[in-house]
Amino acid sequence: MKKLDLLTLGDELLLGLRANSHLDYLGGEFARHGLPLRRNLVVRDEPADIEAAFRDCWQSAVIVVTTGGLGPTSDDNTREAIARVLGLPLELDPAAEAAISERFLRAHRTMTDDDRKQCYRPRGAQLLPNRHGTAPGIYLEKDGKILVMLPGPTNELRPMFVNEVLPHLQEAGALQSSEAYLQLRTAGVPEIQVEQRIRPIVNKYPGLGLAFCAHQGQVDVRIAPGARDFGPGELKAIGQEMRAVLDEDFVCFGHMTLAEVVLEELHARGATLALAESCTGGLLANAFTDIPGASEIFLGSVVSYSNDAKVQLLDVPEIILAQHGAVSAETALAMATGAAERIGADYALSITGLAGPTGGTAELPVGTVFLGYTSPNGAWSRKVHYSGDRLTVKARAVHGAIDWMRRKLLKYQAVDLLAASAGSSS
Amino acid sequence: MKKLDLLTLGDELLLGLRANSHLDYLGGEFARHGLPLRRNLVVRDEPADIEAAFRDCWQSAVIVVTTGGLGPTSDDNTREAIARVLGLPLELDPAAEAAISERFLRAHRTMTDDDRKQCYRPRGAQLLPNRHGTAPGIYLEKDGKILVMLPGPTNELRPMFVNEVLPHLQEAGALQSSEAYLQLRTAGVPEIQVEQRIRPIVNKYPGLGLAFCAHQGQVDVRIAPGARDFGPGELKAIGQEMRAVLDEDFVCFGHMTLAEVVLEELHARGATLALAESCTGGLLANAFTDIPGASEIFLGSVVSYSNDAKVQLLDVPEIILAQHGAVSAETALAMATGAAERIGADYALSITGLAGPTGGTAELPVGTVFLGYTSPNGAWSRKVHYSGDRLTVKARAVHGAIDWMRRKLLKYQAVDLLAASAGSSS
Repeated sequence: MKKLDLLTLGDELLLGLRANSHLDYLGGEFARHGLPLRRNLVVRDEPADIEAAFRDCWQSAVIVVTTGGLGPTSDDNTREAIARVLGLPLELDPAAEAAISERFLRAHRTMTDDDRKQCYRPRGAQLLPNRHGTAPGIYLEKDGKILVMLPGPTNELRPMFVNEVLPHLQEAGALQSSEAYLQLRTAGVPEIQVEQRIRPIVNKYPGLGLAFCAHQGQVDVRIAPGARDFGPGELKAIGQEMRAVLDEDFVCFGHMTLAEVVLEELHARGATLALAESCTGGLLANAFTDIPGASEIFLGSVVSYSNDAKVQLLDVPEIILAQHGAVSAETALAMATGAAERIGADYALSITGLAGPTGGTAELPVGTVFLGYTSPNGAWSRKVHYSGDRLTVKARAVHGAIDWMRRKLLKYQAVDLLAASAGSSS
Repeated sequence: MKKLDLLTLGDELLLGLRANSHLDYLGGEFARHGLPLRRNLVVRDEPADIEAAFRDCWQSAVIVVTTGGLGPTSDDNTREAIARVLGLPLELDPAAEAAISERFLRAHRTMTDDDRKQCYRPRGAQLLPNRHGTAPGIYLEKDGKILVMLPGPTNELRPMFVNEVLPHLQEAGALQSSEAYLQLRTAGVPEIQVEQRIRPIVNKYPGLGLAFCAHQGQVDVRIAPGARDFGPGELKAIGQEMRAVLDEDFVCFGHMTLAEVVLEELHARGATLALAESCTGGLLANAFTDIPGASEIFLGSVVSYSNDAKVQLLDVPEIILAQHGAVSAETALAMATGAAERIGADYALSITGLAGPTGGTAELPVGTVFLGYTSPNGAWSRKVHYSGDRLTVKARAVHGAIDWMRRKLLKYQAVDLLAASAGSSS
């Protein structure tokens, strides 16, 4: 396995100003191409810090990828610092200069000397065109090693990675052609229980590569060729064994979100979806509308923060609000059925609860959430409790609600199939 | 300045399975306490990798904080690896064992040998109690250096940091008592323009610490004591100079989101807010409902993905949809006024557009967005265009819409004041 280090530059990452999303994206992309990241170093924009970190990476890794610090501002020092470590002079690239100055012309802006910094590259390196910004990337093969330098803005980095970097690395023979691991996604069970349930299977296959990731009620299991170099077919068979013991807690192979799994199931049924939410305040709808093509299935949602909005927009009976309160099983169910009726959908899911930090009582502490669901198979409500701060409760409630709906869809599909097969054999 | 390194452990971070949110949180918290992070190293759960990275950090830094790998599963190796580097034996802590086994009893679960791993600490170290999970943290002072080891789950790490780690570091004299920098938040202008506008001011104060962070249409400027050790009063005066040249592009001092600034302004006016959104699909409402206490001002929102939902829930006239289409200035305005009327709010903001990836036309390409706004001062619509993929367009549209509302609030407050003062002087 080629040693791959990612060097992420930017004071703002270390000061808590911005999330290091490049690590997620590049780590995931590289892993899928059989080139898992060994390390990620995040350092300040100081030239001395960049030099020290890059020297360390360049000595011990075979491929080094850097992000950030290629722009025109005074804290963009990556190009210069790395050229110094490599002992290479920086040279003006006339083609890049022409491309950038044309970009400025089109935007009716004047190119300054600061902007011109971006047209330089270490001797022997290639510039990677940037279709979404000014700073080009840099690609260099030297002493049997590969250096890739990418601009910091996400919307510039990602297309450049796909369109420029992957082809270069493919050509250099650094990538694996097939998927490098198999992922089983589970929901609703803690990591330790997932591990305990699959451990007998893991023990049967010594040397199997294994990693867990728990994130908000969801646990991903990744199995990889590992020390014994299991082939894709073997991994698939092991994955199916694990799926069987995980039963309905198994969500999917791969990277689908719970919302994607639910949308796909509704799509297969030719059905439509409406939502109604109070304490999650739009986050439930957002989980579905993040998915391209969601509009074929998802019709609309009501974020009913006030009682008035519940009555006006969802026809929740005032007597239910008065008698049972806004945070109750009765209101959750009325929200779901109201959303389905008003929006004209086959299925509807609702959430009402207390995300906090204030508003809790002894009877209904912060974190109390009621879910409502209506479907052609029936309508249900459910009481749950999520601990954590406001944002955690919101996220967990959304996750729990969609997982609950997923299980209902699974269950009533199974019953239908049983009924159908019983019918056909009788 | 004490050199502070963060060592974040977990294969899942390097494989793109989970965001390194500990870096954001701890980086931000440390910066606020005058102890900016020097580096963050992210390495795999492999004992050899942990040992190498920790050895590097422990040699060159004064304070080292680690996260992750303290739990009971087989890929939790941090405690053992670090004890080896420190040359310290691991000792069972009977108090921790009692606390954890009680936790298991309460949860009606049986404590296994794997679980018991969590009760060990390097000789001389203190365990930090974990009120939200099983794995305690570890605190050690040795050879004039400080080691802090925190569990990986966010909801365990954060309270432990606030309740246990900060007091320990305070006592050790590692923290600054006052805020360590001043932040100016701007919106609607690119980083390079922000820098150009404030550069004359920066040039007047050589040695001033300066960092920029651009994130989706927002640029933060942080000024710090720097080489010349500017005092808090001086920083404030420099910040005010910058604010003046930034004019209405200045959002706030500090860390408030645009939604917080808008909610605060509406709160000051005793006014209420409703929303209506199509292509942003709940993300606009979510920006407001992330804020504790939002329910005092924000009443509700309609996510009207289908035309039917726009008619049924927002009273958008069918003739407007038929004549101008769902993505039009007319529909945006009708959505805003419909939301204000139906939900009974003083102000309403709406978004309708095409987030993509499909559905664009020559006239209305993907990324076309119309905003609508209604207020006691009048109602407006606005056409904008955002480039990027689906999630980027959603995020930018939400950001652009709230910033547009912020500027309208600012402008019509000013006009009202002028009108009032003109009235009183005549």
